[in-house]
Amino acid sequence: MIRVAILGATGYTAYELIRLLLRHPQAQVTVVTSRSETSHISQVHPALYGRLDLRLENPSPDELAARADVCFCCLPHVASMETVPKLLSAGLKVVDLSADYRLKDPGVYETWYKHVHTDPTRLGTTVYGLPELFANRIPGQSLIANPGCYTSTSILALAPLLHEKLIEPTGIIIDAKSGVSGAGRTPKTNILYAECNESFSAYSVGDHRHTPEIEQVLTESSGQKVDVIFTPHLVPMDRGILATIYATPTGPVTQAQLLEAMRRFYTGKPFVRVVDHLPRTKDVSYTNYCDITARVVRGKVLVFGALDNLIKGASGVAVQNFNLMYGFPETTALEA
Amino acid sequence: MIRVAILGATGYTAYELIRLLLRHPQAQVTVVTSRSETSHISQVHPALYGRLDLRLENPSPDELAARADVCFCCLPHVASMETVPKLLSAGLKVVDLSADYRLKDPGVYETWYKHVHTDPTRLGTTVYGLPELFANRIPGQSLIANPGCYTSTSILALAPLLHEKLIEPTGIIIDAKSGVSGAGRTPKTNILYAECNESFSAYSVGDHRHTPEIEQVLTESSGQKVDVIFTPHLVPMDRGILATIYATPTGPVTQAQLLEAMRRFYTGKPFVRVVDHLPRTKDVSYTNYCDITARVVRGKVLVFGALDNLIKGASGVAVQNFNLMYGFPETTALEA
Amino acid sequence: MIRVAILGATGYTAYELIRLLLRHPQAQVTVVTSRSETSHISQVHPALYGRLDLRLENPSPDELAARADVCFCCLPHVASMETVPKLLSAGLKVVDLSADYRLKDPGVYETWYKHVHTDPTRLGTTVYGLPELFANRIPGQSLIANPGCYTSTSILALAPLLHEKLIEPTGIIIDAKSGVSGAGRTPKTNILYAECNESFSAYSVGDHRHTPEIEQVLTESSGQKVDVIFTPHLVPMDRGILATIYATPTGPVTQAQLLEAMRRFYTGKPFVRVVDHLPRTKDVSYTNYCDITARVVRGKVLVFGALDNLIKGASGVAVQNFNLMYGFPETTALEA
Amino acid sequence: MIRVAILGATGYTAYELIRLLLRHPQAQVTVVTSRSETSHISQVHPALYGRLDLRLENPSPDELAARADVCFCCLPHVASMETVPKLLSAGLKVVDLSADYRLKDPGVYETWYKHVHTDPTRLGTTVYGLPELFANRIPGQSLIANPGCYTSTSILALAPLLHEKLIEPTGIIIDAKSGVSGAGRTPKTNILYAECNESFSAYSVGDHRHTPEIEQVLTESSGQKVDVIFTPHLVPMDRGILATIYATPTGPVTQAQLLEAMRRFYTGKPFVRVVDHLPRTKDVSYTNYCDITARVVRGKVLVFGALDNLIKGASGVAVQNFNLMYGFPETTALEA
Repeated sequence: MIRVAILGATGYTAYELIRLLLRHPQAQVTVVTSRSETSHISQVHPALYGRLDLRLENPSPDELAARADVCFCCLPHVASMETVPKLLSAGLKVVDLSADYRLKDPGVYETWYKHVHTDPTRLGTTVYGLPELFANRIPGQSLIANPGCYTSTSILALAPLLHEKLIEPTGIIIDAKSGVSGAGRTPKTNILYAECNESFSAYSVGDHRHTPEIEQVLTESSGQKVDVIFTPHLVPMDRGILATIYATPTGPVTQAQLLEAMRRFYTGKPFVRVVDHLPRTKDVSYTNYCDITARVVRGKVLVFGALDNLIKGASGVAVQNFNLMYGFPETTALEA
Repeated sequence: MIRVAILGATGYTAYELIRLLLRHPQAQVTVVTSRSETSHISQVHPALYGRLDLRLENPSPDELAARADVCFCCLPHVASMETVPKLLSAGLKVVDLSADYRLKDPGVYETWYKHVHTDPTRLGTTVYGLPELFANRIPGQSLIANPGCYTSTSILALAPLLHEKLIEPTGIIIDAKSGVSGAGRTPKTNILYAECNESFSAYSVGDHRHTPEIEQVLTESSGQKVDVIFTPHLVPMDRGILATIYATPTGPVTQAQLLEAMRRFYTGKPFVRVVDHLPRTKDVSYTNYCDITARVVRGKVLVFGALDNLIKGASGVAVQNFNLMYGFPETTALEA
Repeated sequence: MIRVAILGATGYTAYELIRLLLRHPQAQVTVVTSRSETSHISQVHPALYGRLDLRLENPSPDELAARADVCFCCLPHVASMETVPKLLSAGLKVVDLSADYRLKDPGVYETWYKHVHTDPTRLGTTVYGLPELFANRIPGQSLIANPGCYTSTSILALAPLLHEKLIEPTGIIIDAKSGVSGAGRTPKTNILYAECNESFSAYSVGDHRHTPEIEQVLTESSGQKVDVIFTPHLVPMDRGILATIYATPTGPVTQAQLLEAMRRFYTGKPFVRVVDHLPRTKDVSYTNYCDITARVVRGKVLVFGALDNLIKGASGVAVQNFNLMYGFPETTALEA
Repeated sequence: MIRVAILGATGYTAYELIRLLLRHPQAQVTVVTSRSETSHISQVHPALYGRLDLRLENPSPDELAARADVCFCCLPHVASMETVPKLLSAGLKVVDLSADYRLKDPGVYETWYKHVHTDPTRLGTTVYGLPELFANRIPGQSLIANPGCYTSTSILALAPLLHEKLIEPTGIIIDAKSGVSGAGRTPKTNILYAECNESFSAYSVGDHRHTPEIEQVLTESSGQKVDVIFTPHLVPMDRGILATIYATPTGPVTQAQLLEAMRRFYTGKPFVRVVDHLPRTKDVSYTNYCDITARVVRGKVLVFGALDNLIKGASGVAVQNFNLMYGFPETTALEA
């Protein structure tokens, strides 16, 4: 039985992690932490009433290491890179759900996150935990950088077509739409119910931080320099991301060829479904699936990807990474 | 042209007031205040872009009095009773949308609001601005206490049946449901989108502050001691209140008799519609209407009332009070 | 491995059943039926893409019996009582999710459902599948009448207090609110998105068919004649029911005593959580839990119950009944 | 006073028309028609209770002409082109909200609508009622083709930049998102509450019928052959459209230059607001405004347009056309 600590356990991704791990036959959540709260976990997440008897606490890395084998780190960026080195030094394994270990280049990190990276030596070497691309790198790792939600949607949709050079690597337009849980649980006016409900808008146009992450991973996985324009939007719903992607084909191509390339690429990958229909976020909600499809319209290739931002976009893939780190079947605790 | 100041202009009721007053041929909004913000009003309420060219400011009562004739006071309770006396002294008229001048008895205020009332002499004399009951008291007043949203829904639904003594004044159960805008615009976890959406729950069971207000007004209007059990709930929608009310008939009564009593009571009242069907909040959204009906079920009288909490429950009735104060037609600027 | 047929597989409860049974280690869905559709199940329920490779068909009872051991019958009422006798004759076990076998008295059925019951001899003997009350009757049964969603919410909330005679059995008011999925998937104007969204209303006031079901089961379980006023409302959300219940205590009683009675009653029952806080439907969504609590307000007892109408209110409890029929652990496939 | 008939009065655009016209000092709704319903209009639109005392009926064109001066035709396409010629022959003026008179070329109509156009001689000559582009053509017309909702959003956002040749006319990508009311009020599974809620998806990819309409009007207004890829999506909200548009600049350009071009183009146009911030659909809901802005991202021009599909996208612009036809001030009855 692997003992698990959830760091920063008051948010939505932490709740989903706990929910999934409660189903996991080889995992036991033993510690839940918060820097500010000390209440019972069920007061912060009433859905856990009677299911997990732990109080929020703020133990030192050594205390954590005495009571857990692995940490799922749900801290915000910056806080994460301050904490993770101490956890690793104390002997803990870490799945980091923040952005702090995803980028390879400290300069790129600083440009997009407006902070100097304080643990730069790990940037070039930390494994990026997108199992559909990098499953073979994950087993035995001590630190996994869990991918961003928009990032996974975009990468899983595009990777097969870039891999087979069916689309040009530059000038890709990713018009992405997310449910509100992606914005976190810290109270702010712009995520109040009466602001988001019955409203739709774009945000962070031109400067969303998942942009360099998408480009880095697709560039590495396809062996070509990829650049994208990424435009996120907020949808009045709890969960779900749909990415509508516009790319230029490298030559004449049909929808059937695109779908075949996708199916080849994801053979044996249990959580990507290449579908014929246009995916709906509802069909992947509360699952670890990512549904993708493609169309050809007036000479352009359109790619669609849908996933649950809290599951396949965050906590589900974190459990998938955990499974791979420890050699458990990849789908453990991730049944739909 | 009456010059209008909106105090506490950053919230939802203030926005609705401005929106309605922009349509009013005899009113001009000349001042919008905030204790913390100094931006242009359209940065706080982007829907006002190009429609009202004012910046938020925090003028003294005398400055206000130099630039406005009447204040709509959208401050929170306590803040309101600290401010209103100064406004009145400076010669301004006031429609107060807070709870501070609604109750008659300072002791009751202290019990429910946990604050000593600092302007108690006005409590017995301030007119309660529910025009369907007290229209004749409003003209010429300097201060009007604008009613609460749950309060108006409950009172408008019950008043005719209590007036005609068709139902017992005690043991009335009011099960009320409100959209989230009723909780205001100050960021708090419990009104985040991802908390309220896809959820329904009761709150403030047994201690919601509209309880004594409902009892006071119905007791006064019916001449009998009225007591109620009031249970509010939060509905995942922006706006709208439905009250489902259970009362005991004083004797045998039919649905037709109940509806007739309601229609008699509201003859000539433009904003209460006695409907035969079960009211939906959607049908009164963005209007100053309150739709009510009644049923008899297994010997109990069921009464239903629906209104838009931001319009008939707050800013619409405030404009209605303004119209009556100044002698304008009651419906001015309040067309659906 | 138990072979399972889902009859009437195009609706929401059927989808939830399939979803839950796909997790069940002792069940295999082998047949999905429809009287009108012949497409692949994943065209009707795209969420099942790649998860269940069956086409909709309309086999005879004998064909069904050759390929399945048990039927979950998701047909509408009347259609169910025409079909169930044939299924039983063919040797199948049946969990019937319609209302056709819930009531004991054919006359009551006819009064509320406006149809003569064509299989009246089974009415007195069919076990009502609410496991928290009748778990001992379910093992080995061939036919289980699966309870209604409002019914289970109301009964689970009230049963302990009636059992201990803490509340009067008459004059109970049940003000219930449900998400829209409870109204089914047959296209009708009143359940269109643009009708339900941003709206709240009551419906079926005084004549909702769950009324006699609630009274019958509570009367039987408490040994006293119970009567209720039941008022359902439609909430703009997919799933979830909250019942707010008003009852008269039989004598002086405290909140603590009420909660203790509830906890005594549900000791060892894994799916009822007696909580201290006011339950939110969101906290039981996608789970088989029913959360209940109680309050004392001005001499009345208020009871609150919340569950997911598609899970604990329909398909989850159906799987719970299936588990009990076959002797599997009650919680199999029902982890939250 | 102009007497107005609403043809096809049971849908959402008809309701919005009636609501707006009830505020219009020079219009009176005298007839409401339906081919199937004969109930009072308030039974179909309960929000109109007490506000419009008309029953639905199905009069002949001559009867209509005796009781009305102008028809707002809310019939579906095909039905509209069968009816409009008769209305015109009977001497009525017509604002047609269907697509039947929007395209200039009967062949294009047949290609996209799969019907032979039965009134082709009017196609070349009917005025397209987008007042911001064609206000001078509308006065005195007998027939106006009211624009589509996605169409107006896209055209109003793009027209200024194409007019000043700041962007290339080809390869424009329009990624558009609409609330569900745009899909009408006829019951279909895909617009049920429990299908749309908590879901986001694309539809009609590559073949949505607003595509040729957008191209035709932008080609005409800019004097260059315009082609677009248009991808619509369904948002879980009642109303609102946001279009996110990607275009290639013809040369180096700044955000400031784009906004200036927009402001020049819409000088004196009361209903288009060129905003600096990213528009939200909520800020134009229940108004006749279209909010637009532009950005430059990585060498591409991004344009954003937002409007209320039922108002500026349908019934509001229809009233605007009515005002221009009759010489009333353009903003009459269209205050926000």
